[in-house]
Amino acid sequence: MITGEVATQEKITELLPFLLRPENIARYEDGSVYICDRRKYPFSREFVRCNSVEEVAMAIEQMVTQGGGPWMAAAQAMMLAACEVKGEAQQKVCAHLSGARDRLVVTRPTNTAMARRLELLLESAVRALESGDSVENAIAEWIERAISALYENYAIRARHAASLIEDGDGILTNCFAETGFIVAVAMAVRDGKRVQVFTPETRPYFQGAKLTSPCLHELGIRVKLLTDNMPAYVMSEGLIHKYITAADLITVDGHVVNKIGTFQLALAAQYHNIPFYAFAWGKDEDSQTRSDIKMEYRDAAEIRQAMGQPTTVESIDAWYPAFDICPPQLVAGVVTVHGVLKPEALVNYSVW
Amino acid sequence: MITGEVATQEKITELLPFLLRPENIARYEDGSVYICDRRKYPFSREFVRCNSVEEVAMAIEQMVTQGGGPWMAAAQAMMLAACEVKGEAQQKVCAHLSGARDRLVVTRPTNTAMARRLELLLESAVRALESGDSVENAIAEWIERAISALYENYAIRARHAASLIEDGDGILTNCFAETGFIVAVAMAVRDGKRVQVFTPETRPYFQGAKLTSPCLHELGIRVKLLTDNMPAYVMSEGLIHKYITAADLITVDGHVVNKIGTFQLALAAQYHNIPFYAFAWGKDEDSQTRSDIKMEYRDAAEIRQAMGQPTTVESIDAWYPAFDICPPQLVAGVVTVHGVLKPEALVNYSVW
Repeated sequence: MITGEVATQEKITELLPFLLRPENIARYEDGSVYICDRRKYPFSREFVRCNSVEEVAMAIEQMVTQGGGPWMAAAQAMMLAACEVKGEAQQKVCAHLSGARDRLVVTRPTNTAMARRLELLLESAVRALESGDSVENAIAEWIERAISALYENYAIRARHAASLIEDGDGILTNCFAETGFIVAVAMAVRDGKRVQVFTPETRPYFQGAKLTSPCLHELGIRVKLLTDNMPAYVMSEGLIHKYITAADLITVDGHVVNKIGTFQLALAAQYHNIPFYAFAWGKDEDSQTRSDIKMEYRDAAEIRQAMGQPTTVESIDAWYPAFDICPPQLVAGVVTVHGVLKPEALVNYSVW
Repeated sequence: MITGEVATQEKITELLPFLLRPENIARYEDGSVYICDRRKYPFSREFVRCNSVEEVAMAIEQMVTQGGGPWMAAAQAMMLAACEVKGEAQQKVCAHLSGARDRLVVTRPTNTAMARRLELLLESAVRALESGDSVENAIAEWIERAISALYENYAIRARHAASLIEDGDGILTNCFAETGFIVAVAMAVRDGKRVQVFTPETRPYFQGAKLTSPCLHELGIRVKLLTDNMPAYVMSEGLIHKYITAADLITVDGHVVNKIGTFQLALAAQYHNIPFYAFAWGKDEDSQTRSDIKMEYRDAAEIRQAMGQPTTVESIDAWYPAFDICPPQLVAGVVTVHGVLKPEALVNYSVW
């Protein structure tokens, strides 16, 4: 273990930028679910209004929200489902909720965390139904508890990561490492440390340019946007001291799977003796080691465009591996609720 | 030395794609200079028509042509200058040509090779003037000889590089390594070797997407376009066997300066035991070692856009180092007219 266990009651509400406040990610209000449209951010702050489960499902499929957004939008959609069968017979309510869950889960077939959460939400709703309690209340309370637990988890891990950051640090990230990373940097700055974050733009979707940079900038944190081919040069100039990213998945034996480019920058970091830390999302016992990882390849046509403009002619072949894999030898630490662990130590913990 | 000296009389005309044929780069025709507009390629094949030295200078400044293009356009502009003062007194002709040269040189202040070539062209014109010969003929002949010598140089170096390529190789490049690289791959394919080239798109200008990929594709060479954050992953999949780029400058002690991203990919190549070769353009005695290199930083606003579309809001700070530096330890060989040399051996050769 690199840093020890700390319980944190730190309030992080004021450290959250617009995009990461739970009520802005997705909220239920008067029979509608409002989802912040990340496709339009940072150019505008708009919400997509959905009046049915199907509309929420389509919004998720159309990438209105990403990262930690889909499960929250899907959970709020279950409120819509409950309203649609209010006062109906128990069996009908149960079937309707179950059908809504099934529709929402298929919007992101690889998002097993969302499926698990919706299953728990459904169980809670069914229990209320069987006890004659309000299903809507049960769902609303479940969502509130889940969000509260999630943000407490973010706060604990952000505190661990913030402790790694030193006064004067240049920090490289990749893609959009969401609440854990943003709050960690904000905590370090609140602690009085001077920090400069370098944000590679992250092709082909530009999450570094569109999401990470504006979120940090909104919180008054110094940001320098780079293209994805620049970080090694910035390292060679001595401007980067830590490399910190999220992780889409970490195998039990410590391989970090994250957005494409993470591995390339980890190699550059290793060459420059810069430690690489990854936020663990949660444990996935299905992935013991590298060979258990199912790589995702997306539509190559995405590589022939930038911001919707063609970058070359259609006859050019392209390839779009969406993620890459960092072996544990490149990972200085994994940021978990237990502290920052050596990747080889993860196997000793039942929950990360 | 890695491969020995070879004299080559190989004809490379049929190995040149549209963009790299000298008559398409820039040509003088009936009182006008036509410059292929690389800004519009590969979406269209258009020429900018210039009727004066000033129009050529502005076209160069406006990035109508790049790489090996500016000096050719500037040389053809000297034909225009000569026509403008045809029949005038010797002193006036001389002053006019000299003024034209001065205007053309400032279009690319860091392009010392262009300045050197225009000086030689001017000397040749002045000699003709003093002998009472046709200045236009002298310039036209000088240009023909210079282009012929240049393409012979390309052919020799391309043959050396082609000899490095093995049947079944996956080849990574970066940016647009121009005629030397394109012809080397074309030669290897003509020699019966099966080759697959991976072309990172090269942000922020997309030269990999817009220039390298279409040039190779036009010659029937297999190409896969990538974003700049993907090559290390492609290497980890065992698909890349050589990494070959151009070099904007190589120091006498073997540091390779090239388009931003070259260093980052050289680090990934080293980790995967993939040799990195760079085409030497020519010797620059002004750069003995790393500390002699003047780095070029361009307008950060370029980093906040892609294909003219904003990728983030204007308030986000950005940084645009245009080149990076690979130390000789990362360079397996430098492709010169003498063969493929270890970077440490360059110092032993008076001309590369």
